[in-house]
Amino acid sequence: MAYRIEFEPIGIRLISEEAQTVYEAARQAGLGLRSSCAGKGTCGKCRVRLRGGPLPPPLEAEREHIPETLLAEGWRLACRTIVSANLTIYIPPALLDDTQVLQTEGVETAFTPRPPVRLLPAVVPPPSLLDQAADLSRLEAALRRQHAVERVTAGLPALQAMRATLREANWQVSVALRGDELIAVYSADHTRPVGLAVDIGTTKLACYLVDLESGRVLCLKGMANPQIAYGEDIMSRLEAVMVNPAQAEHLQREVVAAINAAAEELCAAQGLTPDHLLELCLVGNTAMHHLAAGLPVRPLAVSPFVPALSRDLDVEAARLGLRAASGARVYLPPPLAGFVGSDHLAFLLASGFGQDDRVRLGIDIGTNTEIALQASGRILTCSTASGPAFEGAHIRQGMRAGPGAIHHVEIAPDGGVACDVIGDLPAVGICGSGILDALAEMLRAGILNERGRMQARAPGVEANEGGPVFTLVQAGHGRGAVTISQLDIDQILLAKGAIRTGIDVLMDTLGITPQGLEEVVVAGAFGSYLSPASAVRIGLFPAVPLERIRAVGNAAGTGARMLLASTECRQQAGRLAQRIEYVELTLVPGFNRHFARAVRLPVV
Amino acid sequence: MAYRIEFEPIGIRLISEEAQTVYEAARQAGLGLRSSCAGKGTCGKCRVRLRGGPLPPPLEAEREHIPETLLAEGWRLACRTIVSANLTIYIPPALLDDTQVLQTEGVETAFTPRPPVRLLPAVVPPPSLLDQAADLSRLEAALRRQHAVERVTAGLPALQAMRATLREANWQVSVALRGDELIAVYSADHTRPVGLAVDIGTTKLACYLVDLESGRVLCLKGMANPQIAYGEDIMSRLEAVMVNPAQAEHLQREVVAAINAAAEELCAAQGLTPDHLLELCLVGNTAMHHLAAGLPVRPLAVSPFVPALSRDLDVEAARLGLRAASGARVYLPPPLAGFVGSDHLAFLLASGFGQDDRVRLGIDIGTNTEIALQASGRILTCSTASGPAFEGAHIRQGMRAGPGAIHHVEIAPDGGVACDVIGDLPAVGICGSGILDALAEMLRAGILNERGRMQARAPGVEANEGGPVFTLVQAGHGRGAVTISQLDIDQILLAKGAIRTGIDVLMDTLGITPQGLEEVVVAGAFGSYLSPASAVRIGLFPAVPLERIRAVGNAAGTGARMLLASTECRQQAGRLAQRIEYVELTLVPGFNRHFARAVRLPVV
Repeated sequence: MAYRIEFEPIGIRLISEEAQTVYEAARQAGLGLRSSCAGKGTCGKCRVRLRGGPLPPPLEAEREHIPETLLAEGWRLACRTIVSANLTIYIPPALLDDTQVLQTEGVETAFTPRPPVRLLPAVVPPPSLLDQAADLSRLEAALRRQHAVERVTAGLPALQAMRATLREANWQVSVALRGDELIAVYSADHTRPVGLAVDIGTTKLACYLVDLESGRVLCLKGMANPQIAYGEDIMSRLEAVMVNPAQAEHLQREVVAAINAAAEELCAAQGLTPDHLLELCLVGNTAMHHLAAGLPVRPLAVSPFVPALSRDLDVEAARLGLRAASGARVYLPPPLAGFVGSDHLAFLLASGFGQDDRVRLGIDIGTNTEIALQASGRILTCSTASGPAFEGAHIRQGMRAGPGAIHHVEIAPDGGVACDVIGDLPAVGICGSGILDALAEMLRAGILNERGRMQARAPGVEANEGGPVFTLVQAGHGRGAVTISQLDIDQILLAKGAIRTGIDVLMDTLGITPQGLEEVVVAGAFGSYLSPASAVRIGLFPAVPLERIRAVGNAAGTGARMLLASTECRQQAGRLAQRIEYVELTLVPGFNRHFARAVRLPVV
Repeated sequence: MAYRIEFEPIGIRLISEEAQTVYEAARQAGLGLRSSCAGKGTCGKCRVRLRGGPLPPPLEAEREHIPETLLAEGWRLACRTIVSANLTIYIPPALLDDTQVLQTEGVETAFTPRPPVRLLPAVVPPPSLLDQAADLSRLEAALRRQHAVERVTAGLPALQAMRATLREANWQVSVALRGDELIAVYSADHTRPVGLAVDIGTTKLACYLVDLESGRVLCLKGMANPQIAYGEDIMSRLEAVMVNPAQAEHLQREVVAAINAAAEELCAAQGLTPDHLLELCLVGNTAMHHLAAGLPVRPLAVSPFVPALSRDLDVEAARLGLRAASGARVYLPPPLAGFVGSDHLAFLLASGFGQDDRVRLGIDIGTNTEIALQASGRILTCSTASGPAFEGAHIRQGMRAGPGAIHHVEIAPDGGVACDVIGDLPAVGICGSGILDALAEMLRAGILNERGRMQARAPGVEANEGGPVFTLVQAGHGRGAVTISQLDIDQILLAKGAIRTGIDVLMDTLGITPQGLEEVVVAGAFGSYLSPASAVRIGLFPAVPLERIRAVGNAAGTGARMLLASTECRQQAGRLAQRIEYVELTLVPGFNRHFARAVRLPVV
């Protein structure tokens, strides 16, 4: 079930297929809401007004913070309200983080749009026997006269489409030019240049319909990557293709079909069609990039994991099967290495890498975690197979961060466990940030030792057939308990160990200590929800002052939008890609020693 | 039935689907044979030796000119021998017109090949964990080291193909570059750069497999344009598309399929496949150009007959459905006007237009006849709907210039009619050059007056139900007579009138008299066979000294090969296209007066 959410007065639309709170939906739409409790329902600041949909009955937390009269008018707490219908949501301007700049889930990056394609009105004199000049020459002459365009080139698809449109529009047109190349011709009433930015994640796709002139997101949609049917993680999809090379085409078609469907919905929400998309920008990890572009992936799956290319590509949208304007291009920013994709580059671009000299660590946590470190004039990057534990997979009661998931855990000095559940619902499982909190709290409370062993006699720990188990929420009201097992903890420690090893290797290489880190930028959905204190406490992150840790959400999506709307950002990203040095972790001397240290928990 | 003819020692191969003499086949292959009688079997000079096929029994004319011992060794007269099997034909070098230059059916044009694509050997170091650079970067580095290539760009299709080839060829490859763009990668043993030039005529397609380095034709094939099924002439095909726009796609596919099939045959004859074609060049009239490129043709069919563009186009071969190297381009030279195509430009290029100051008239006779006049620093061109009469259509016993066609006619002072028949066979019909001769001779003999009326009492003329009829060949030996009717003559006079009007208008515009014409260049199959004396006598051409008339055969094909193999020729053609001024005949004051004069026959 897809819901359409419109945020007023800012005017961004979101098409959402997942159950989520208004707070999360706003975040996904790039609207950070000011809040002191980070969405835990305790500070009462994230008040928004619901319109155009059924009003949910107010919750306890809402009655506590909002007067009855306002509740009746539709005011609710964004962090407590789960979207379950098409809604218009009014966000008081004061509640928004700075909205003058493009932003997403916390990252705010100012950039001046320099769109690669512009839209120019033109009145073309119709031909006659006395003036039989070719269509393209007439159009060029009109643009020269009316806009001082020196010359116009054209590829075949634009030429094919132009001929009919000129006549249907009675020679009064709106002309899309990319440099001096004709991209499309519209009737004169179409005047808004739009494009589509797409972040192809292994599990999720995010599509942003962007106004190319302002760089603003008009409408966005996130959905599952349909390639999941061919394997949950990158490696299993690559293996599927190696077993049967014809699968590559299916994988390509699936993802293109999903983007086309999203483009259609997003455009329709603005009264447009995909034919109006003047440019697209796709970012993704290198396997997603290669699969989307139809590049052979076998060499990505076997050592030495070499990509086809490590520079940007301009491809005709039609060649990839993507619906767009007749001559529209898809811009594919450069992959950095076999396991460090253009999404990582987009993240680094959106996070300021290469633009200053700050000692900055960038981490994008996922099944593969990419890490970058900027220091001493160098930028290093590496990739580590951290597995899906932080996404809730391979954890017995793990789940993604949706309604019913425990996303925050505290253990009181008396051993009492307090869990915060998304949507204020009865707990049904635990998501990544909850697991992280649980570990940190268990460690602090002495329930775990620094080797990650659960202490059998600690309060809340029970012996079970498969080993010890710690109870977070007791069974009751017809629901089972939510517990965390020793095996769950082992999974988390392996993931943490893999990530921390990457961080340590990069810091060692550039001689940086935790105290030397001026900034730690964390991307990804998990990064947005985790508690920095817990992350530092279990040693996932180096011990830095917590205020230096900054969650930037789907910064790859923000980078994709910047790369879509600004040729200047493309140049900047190109220079950045040139500078970044890839570190192959397995070749680093002492890698095993690093890892053995990194899986342990810090001594409290 | 297709025959493969190999000409030795020059090494050109021809794949022929039509019955024709060896003399014609050699001409089609661009090999002009020295002969005093222009293929009438009277001079006995065109002796060639047949090998590798069945020896036809010697004809009377051959016994007359060739000693018995040589006949037994396979020597025959090229102009008398009809190809009816795969053959190897030895042409004594002395018999050839100058073969050091590219030539076709009479036109000889020296040009220096400057191929748009080159083929470079490269040894690429394979990747390892210590050197994970992307495939494209490795290839670029190797080309930089080994050939001082500064940088290499690549489109998606070339990238897609490169990845597998690098590994299959064990990193020892042959790299096709177009400027700095990667077109294809082959295993190192492929070293011959080839391309395909195609002349898309309304009735015939001519395909030339060309060695890009030498500019030499390796193999060629002519065949019928399969679009004939949709209408014999341009207008009927355009009308078919206007009635049902989906037909355009069928027409496009038909012609592409025919070219692909020819490419496959031509390449196979050289031990290659179409994947080895590094570049293609297509020329054709504007309707053929637009249909091949998938450009809407409706505006070509209705006044003011405007083309989509009047400049050259570089299109990915795959986009048109043409089989070629992964990243190969099709070069489409500029159409000049709605009814003056890139084939005319290719003809003018191959005939020296724009390269000197000679007063030169160029005529390409067909269903539409294109005419160009160079004088006083200007080049004018026009098109006239001359109809298919000179191709034998709309003539009761007309046929194309194949075996059994009367192609030369003489009327003796005693009224006796001597006809020369292609292949020395019993006459079954009359082709364009025969009709032209017949008219000229009838006029000279007083059988026709200058208004084109047959004189009822002249010898050989009989009254018939449909009007008077002149007998060329009497019935006998079980065969019917071959005659020419008043209606046939009227058709020819209309065609001649249309062509001569175009010539007169251009000459009038530039103030040129027949005496001022330094050269008359005639293209097309009909142009190769016609008798200049007859053409001048009936007033098809202005009254110039006959030695100034030069038949250049399929010069459009020659031009296409020049444009395929030389970027310099492309620039030259571009400048030529810029200079050419199109004259719309119907807008010329006094057009009707011109036409009324032009349909008459000159006073003897």
